[in-house]
Amino acid sequence: MVRLTRREHFNAAHRLFRPEYSDEKNLEVFGKCSNPNWHGHNYTLYITVEGEVDPETGFVANLKQLSQLIRDLVINQLDHKNINIEVGFMRGKLASTENLAIGIWEELAGPVAGLGTSLYAVRVEETENNAAEYLGNKTNNQ
Amino acid sequence: MVRLTRREHFNAAHRLFRPEYSDEKNLEVFGKCSNPNWHGHNYTLYITVEGEVDPETGFVANLKQLSQLIRDLVINQLDHKNINIEVGFMRGKLASTENLAIGIWEELAGPVAGLGTSLYAVRVEETENNAAEYLGNKTNNQ
Amino acid sequence: MVRLTRREHFNAAHRLFRPEYSDEKNLEVFGKCSNPNWHGHNYTLYITVEGEVDPETGFVANLKQLSQLIRDLVINQLDHKNINIEVGFMRGKLASTENLAIGIWEELAGPVAGLGTSLYAVRVEETENNAAEYLGNKTNNQ
Amino acid sequence: MVRLTRREHFNAAHRLFRPEYSDEKNLEVFGKCSNPNWHGHNYTLYITVEGEVDPETGFVANLKQLSQLIRDLVINQLDHKNINIEVGFMRGKLASTENLAIGIWEELAGPVAGLGTSLYAVRVEETENNAAEYLGNKTNNQ
Amino acid sequence: MVRLTRREHFNAAHRLFRPEYSDEKNLEVFGKCSNPNWHGHNYTLYITVEGEVDPETGFVANLKQLSQLIRDLVINQLDHKNINIEVGFMRGKLASTENLAIGIWEELAGPVAGLGTSLYAVRVEETENNAAEYLGNKTNNQ
Amino acid sequence: MVRLTRREHFNAAHRLFRPEYSDEKNLEVFGKCSNPNWHGHNYTLYITVEGEVDPETGFVANLKQLSQLIRDLVINQLDHKNINIEVGFMRGKLASTENLAIGIWEELAGPVAGLGTSLYAVRVEETENNAAEYLGNKTNNQ
Repeated sequence: MVRLTRREHFNAAHRLFRPEYSDEKNLEVFGKCSNPNWHGHNYTLYITVEGEVDPETGFVANLKQLSQLIRDLVINQLDHKNINIEVGFMRGKLASTENLAIGIWEELAGPVAGLGTSLYAVRVEETENNAAEYLGNKTNNQ
Repeated sequence: MVRLTRREHFNAAHRLFRPEYSDEKNLEVFGKCSNPNWHGHNYTLYITVEGEVDPETGFVANLKQLSQLIRDLVINQLDHKNINIEVGFMRGKLASTENLAIGIWEELAGPVAGLGTSLYAVRVEETENNAAEYLGNKTNNQ
Repeated sequence: MVRLTRREHFNAAHRLFRPEYSDEKNLEVFGKCSNPNWHGHNYTLYITVEGEVDPETGFVANLKQLSQLIRDLVINQLDHKNINIEVGFMRGKLASTENLAIGIWEELAGPVAGLGTSLYAVRVEETENNAAEYLGNKTNNQ
Repeated sequence: MVRLTRREHFNAAHRLFRPEYSDEKNLEVFGKCSNPNWHGHNYTLYITVEGEVDPETGFVANLKQLSQLIRDLVINQLDHKNINIEVGFMRGKLASTENLAIGIWEELAGPVAGLGTSLYAVRVEETENNAAEYLGNKTNNQ
Repeated sequence: MVRLTRREHFNAAHRLFRPEYSDEKNLEVFGKCSNPNWHGHNYTLYITVEGEVDPETGFVANLKQLSQLIRDLVINQLDHKNINIEVGFMRGKLASTENLAIGIWEELAGPVAGLGTSLYAVRVEETENNAAEYLGNKTNNQ
Repeated sequence: MVRLTRREHFNAAHRLFRPEYSDEKNLEVFGKCSNPNWHGHNYTLYITVEGEVDPETGFVANLKQLSQLIRDLVINQLDHKNINIEVGFMRGKLASTENLAIGIWEELAGPVAGLGTSLYAVRVEETENNAAEYLGNKTNNQ
């Protein structure tokens, strides 16, 4: 088993808040990330798949196909968008890095299996200081 | 003469558009950066000052004071904000990296002189791929 | 379960040596890291916590609180300090990257639990070339 | 148990292709990586070992010895070389990042054990966007 | 006047040698870079243009057009190629970083002027340790 | 004229203070950098030379020779050392980044000329946030 990681990027706006909270409560819980006029980030996305090496190609997965899949299914939905109001898979969820990682996992796990490999991890870096990683709903979570 | 550079960060939302343009015209000129729902970036800011080394301190400028000045006068206005609608010195200007570099120069040039040194350059990186640098209105521009 | 990682920095001096060794023996075992006049590093610290996403906030942990905890309990002890002679939790230990990772784990594991999440990993990078990672005393170590 | 990671670099030429394929078939399967005139990369290599901390030295492994071992056994074979035609342990294999990670593991696993520690992972970054990681043939693969 | 910098990447093979030298002489002058079987790099390219900010767009140059120009005229010639034998503008020249910077300048200076701005600098990074920068044949070289 | 930049590293301890100041005064002027027990950094050094490209080699300077020169004359004096008490060219000077840049310039300017090229700039990065650059005592300082 070898793990293969592909890095992609997207730039997006977002806001952390609960609509039922007052502005003061949102500020207290979410800090400056609750700014009603939005802010944004250069997000870095690391998609890791895991599988056996195909002896015909030397690949766990074809990186060109994997990159295209990530762009078609994830980057196109997120890049230069407002995560709170324009991204289908984030509708009704808080636009946190954690929820982004889970949401992207759910977009990709099935299609990645269609490439003949398994999704192992989704890592989303909001900044160089903050990152969330989701490894799926494994029984023996690693 | 020695140049001293301080790096700071801010995360902000923005949009490139002209209000008198149609959405189609904005899309044509500014591409996906014209998204009406905003997008955002992790901006990196490099402020370079130039001067003689003070023999008493070994400093061209006190970096703690310089960093505090940049945070008070620039970062506080920009961080976790919407550049188009919340930043005084960008009002009425297109929220491009170029205009950010010029605007930040104008905020800092006077106060930096108050620290006993000269502003040499303002460099704004919107992403690792795109950066603008302004060196002021020098006659013999370097 | 999602993992959340926060990066922090500290700059410190240290020396690798055993007091009962001669200078020659220290040099033989620890190389130039044994220099009696000290040397130092810009350390990068990655603290990873693991837990369920809180549906109220979208967070595994509040990053502002987590960052404050790391600064209060770890960075304040280490930043601009001499690791061998000024850091309580390193007293009597060799100032290696490995021991730093274990020592920081022990400082943080309890307080992180107080934030309602679990410490998953402590990674200390001494330089871009050298890093140590400690995942605690797990029975099924991952 | 602590994990210790050492980063090393090598610059090499390679080509992805199967000799029994036509040029068209190679282009279809391997894309521009099949260019018959070669291309190349600055590869970054991360070698992670895992073990108990030696109370005498504070080390899981002596990094100077580990680095020397990696250079002697791996970097010397790969740096400024053509991976397809000059590297013994890659002979007869596709010169993919995945196969490099496995090949380097096989070169290092035994000698690393000779340093009194265990090889935990071999990570090869072909570019900042593409990386393969091999953790050996563990029964309970982590 | 504002400077605008766009970063692009290419991966290529090359070799430093003079055909009239013996292998020994090439090794003596060019070191391991003279390997007859080639080696390669992940090159990073920084193209800097300089001009007035257009008040209609806030741009010194349209970065999408600039990036497209660099890709069409430079990256397409170099990416996944052998610099010594496949790149028109390097024919008959030593494949050094310095000559790459000059050659890329000559490819781009005219077309960049066609975008209504001026080429200011071409910077080529062969590795993170080695870079060449060419600022053109300015009388008052800066 | 082409500029060629070589990056090198050194890890060192230092302290900012004036011996005639009280500890309180040192703390007031130099902040936590005045810690009497030292602290340290991973310094990054960028040496830029400028010259014509030699048509025989394609080089402004032989990077292997340039790197060796920097290591012999500068890195060997600084790496794993205490800048205040072990580095000849810093004796009697405040161990600031500015003074390091000037001191390294003075060590290298003559020997670099001996390689048939000119020293253009010395840049010292103390951290990723703080850097000093010295371009020598040019009449028309650029």
